[in-house]
Amino acid sequence: MHTILILGGGKSTLFLIDFLAESCQTKKRKLILADIHLASAQAKLKNRANTQARQLDIEDVESRQLLIKEADVVISMLPAFMHPLVARDCLDFGKHFFSASYESVQMQEMKSEIEAKDLFFLNECGLDPGIDHMSAMQIIDFMKSKNQEIISFKSYCGGLLAPESEDNPWKYKFTWNPRNVVLAGQGTSRYIEKDDLKFVPYHQLFKRLETIQFPGLGDFDGYPNRDSLSYRTVYGLENISTMLRGTLRRAGFCKAWNVLVQLGMCDDGFQMNLPENTTLRQFLNSFLPYDPRLSVEEKLGNLIPDFDFPTWEKIQWLGFFGNDLLPKTTGSPAAILQAILEKNWKLYPEDKDMIVMQHLFEIKSTEGNKEIRSSLVCFGEDSTCTAMAKTVGLPLAIAVDLFLDGKINLKGLHIPVLPEIYNPVLAALKNHGISFREEVRIV
Amino acid sequence: MHTILILGGGKSTLFLIDFLAESCQTKKRKLILADIHLASAQAKLKNRANTQARQLDIEDVESRQLLIKEADVVISMLPAFMHPLVARDCLDFGKHFFSASYESVQMQEMKSEIEAKDLFFLNECGLDPGIDHMSAMQIIDFMKSKNQEIISFKSYCGGLLAPESEDNPWKYKFTWNPRNVVLAGQGTSRYIEKDDLKFVPYHQLFKRLETIQFPGLGDFDGYPNRDSLSYRTVYGLENISTMLRGTLRRAGFCKAWNVLVQLGMCDDGFQMNLPENTTLRQFLNSFLPYDPRLSVEEKLGNLIPDFDFPTWEKIQWLGFFGNDLLPKTTGSPAAILQAILEKNWKLYPEDKDMIVMQHLFEIKSTEGNKEIRSSLVCFGEDSTCTAMAKTVGLPLAIAVDLFLDGKINLKGLHIPVLPEIYNPVLAALKNHGISFREEVRIV
Repeated sequence: MHTILILGGGKSTLFLIDFLAESCQTKKRKLILADIHLASAQAKLKNRANTQARQLDIEDVESRQLLIKEADVVISMLPAFMHPLVARDCLDFGKHFFSASYESVQMQEMKSEIEAKDLFFLNECGLDPGIDHMSAMQIIDFMKSKNQEIISFKSYCGGLLAPESEDNPWKYKFTWNPRNVVLAGQGTSRYIEKDDLKFVPYHQLFKRLETIQFPGLGDFDGYPNRDSLSYRTVYGLENISTMLRGTLRRAGFCKAWNVLVQLGMCDDGFQMNLPENTTLRQFLNSFLPYDPRLSVEEKLGNLIPDFDFPTWEKIQWLGFFGNDLLPKTTGSPAAILQAILEKNWKLYPEDKDMIVMQHLFEIKSTEGNKEIRSSLVCFGEDSTCTAMAKTVGLPLAIAVDLFLDGKINLKGLHIPVLPEIYNPVLAALKNHGISFREEVRIV
Repeated sequence: MHTILILGGGKSTLFLIDFLAESCQTKKRKLILADIHLASAQAKLKNRANTQARQLDIEDVESRQLLIKEADVVISMLPAFMHPLVARDCLDFGKHFFSASYESVQMQEMKSEIEAKDLFFLNECGLDPGIDHMSAMQIIDFMKSKNQEIISFKSYCGGLLAPESEDNPWKYKFTWNPRNVVLAGQGTSRYIEKDDLKFVPYHQLFKRLETIQFPGLGDFDGYPNRDSLSYRTVYGLENISTMLRGTLRRAGFCKAWNVLVQLGMCDDGFQMNLPENTTLRQFLNSFLPYDPRLSVEEKLGNLIPDFDFPTWEKIQWLGFFGNDLLPKTTGSPAAILQAILEKNWKLYPEDKDMIVMQHLFEIKSTEGNKEIRSSLVCFGEDSTCTAMAKTVGLPLAIAVDLFLDGKINLKGLHIPVLPEIYNPVLAALKNHGISFREEVRIV
């Protein structure tokens, strides 16, 4: 009898928990869900057979370690910075470890010890990172097996709203950690295009757009994200001419978001201490030059080149030209902006989210060059059963299930770029309605 | 007999050393100059009576502490991050401490101990910070004594070239730490204008300009620098409507520098690892969008709004459109840019630098409002006897001299904002040709 321990039962764990709890009823398994809030964990488990909710303060080392000792496999759904702590315990007590977060440097430092202890540690097995790796590697390895050369690979992903819930000018609401959305893209993004290395500072990022289309869904803005260069090695594409990973927003979003970036409102580097009666209009004005002859609107128009109506409407809709009080007057500009956005970009209970992912390949083959467009679209059911929770949770649940069934027979530190992982996981995801539509075009 | 110890004999210490070495010949004093390079320290002291050069590796705790024990007064001309180390030793061995650097938080934490031990610690006693504080406070205290209300105070300073040495389109060369010049203004600058708090992110900073004029010298660009808000308390101007501290460059410099900022070339946050045969043109291109139909020049023109000829000429003069190899291909973009600039902005031996500083006050008085413009201009003699070394070193030397003569009778932790310090220091600076020209205009 295997015991699975899930640490943290937050918003994105619904499908993960349901999948594994249900597997406990058909397979010889036990599931423990540990969360700081016992009642919340109990509600998620719904008294299903062989499941157990536990209260746990993750900082309480003794309780945490006792719990980990009980398990065979530990899934960490905690905030990313806590993973190394849990992984360390797993190493010490000989437990396998799974997460949907990026493989950190601390994790990489454990590599040889994981191997020596014959354990399996799998990170980056959610949506992005996760499904992106698996679906891309399936195509890459197939092309390599056919001796076809991949000369360009671009991969975009976004967590957005289903079209029927796009009821504001931004066509966006928070379906994921708001702080990460506000800070998205900070630092310098890096990619390679036709053998030219490209570096994009944050204040240029939301202008460096490519229009990405999904059949039946229309246009999206794609912007380059993080360090795409490092993925050349991860994907075994060291000599590729073009490689870019990016993020998707609805067409027009980035131009308006760039206004906030240009103003400095996404800055998280210093603390503001504004008077308590500061209005949104005054907050906006504090980022604009002083000019007694001009209105806030005129000064903003002068600061932003090519300020069109759709952009204007988005800024106005957030209330920046009005005299409502700020929801928060202390903290970084990013924290104050986040509070403003959280008031406006809140999901209604019936809102449906949408995950969109697209891989664009250019292939050189003996019959001529071809383009492959591989697209995933996944809709949520409502603000609880979200596409985000489904696409983050299911790959992880499936990977754990396959591992415990002996169908993933690997040891060591991994991300899901090996066929032994991606083939069975992608096959199982297809059974849950998560699959890619592939179009090929000879150019 | 007092012993003065100077730690570090770098570029800006020439006038400091000369002033204090000469005072050793007329007053009962001894001067020790400790530097990592003994020969360089010896050369600066020129065998003058009662002076002594010593070799010191500042990381060698024992040697450093033995040296500090020999002194009555320690002047740290080391890089700013080393000051707390030296200050700590001074506290432990009961020595007075002087520097031209910003008073750090670590220094502030020593405040009560400095007072308890009846020592005098003076920081920010160079040019900027230093002469700016002293000259401003003399005016502020005078106005207060006349019951005149200061409603606006702007203060600008720049280390530039004397007009006769302005022989490139930037009208700029490095007369000071190149790395600080490349990184200048990063973070968010803060000021208050007509009671409106203003926040300027780095990528807007070099557009937020005010034209500043010096009689006979023409126009300069002034841009807001760092946190001007905190100086309201330092200068006792808590309720002032307008308060801004800024940096001066020659008119037109900031518009061209902004091109480098917009590109992301001043970014110090990540490491590039470019091929060794990368040209300046390719380096520039790596920050531009890919477009096979456009030249590098066209892409740059599209990226930068309002790209005029004087700006174009400055970028071209640095070699960015040519095929010379990069002087350096690894390091942050800022480090590579610095290497490019160091080749181009190098002082010739006969080049003369120039310090410009201007305070602009608006005063409300019973006779009506008036504007005061108080300007300092100081020229260097050549690339060794610079105005920078003079204006940084002399205030510090004079403060030490006055303190040892018992003419500054203070204890505790200070910056030179008190009349007991600024009055005698400014009077002595006047004798060395460093004085402000004041113009008053009724408005």
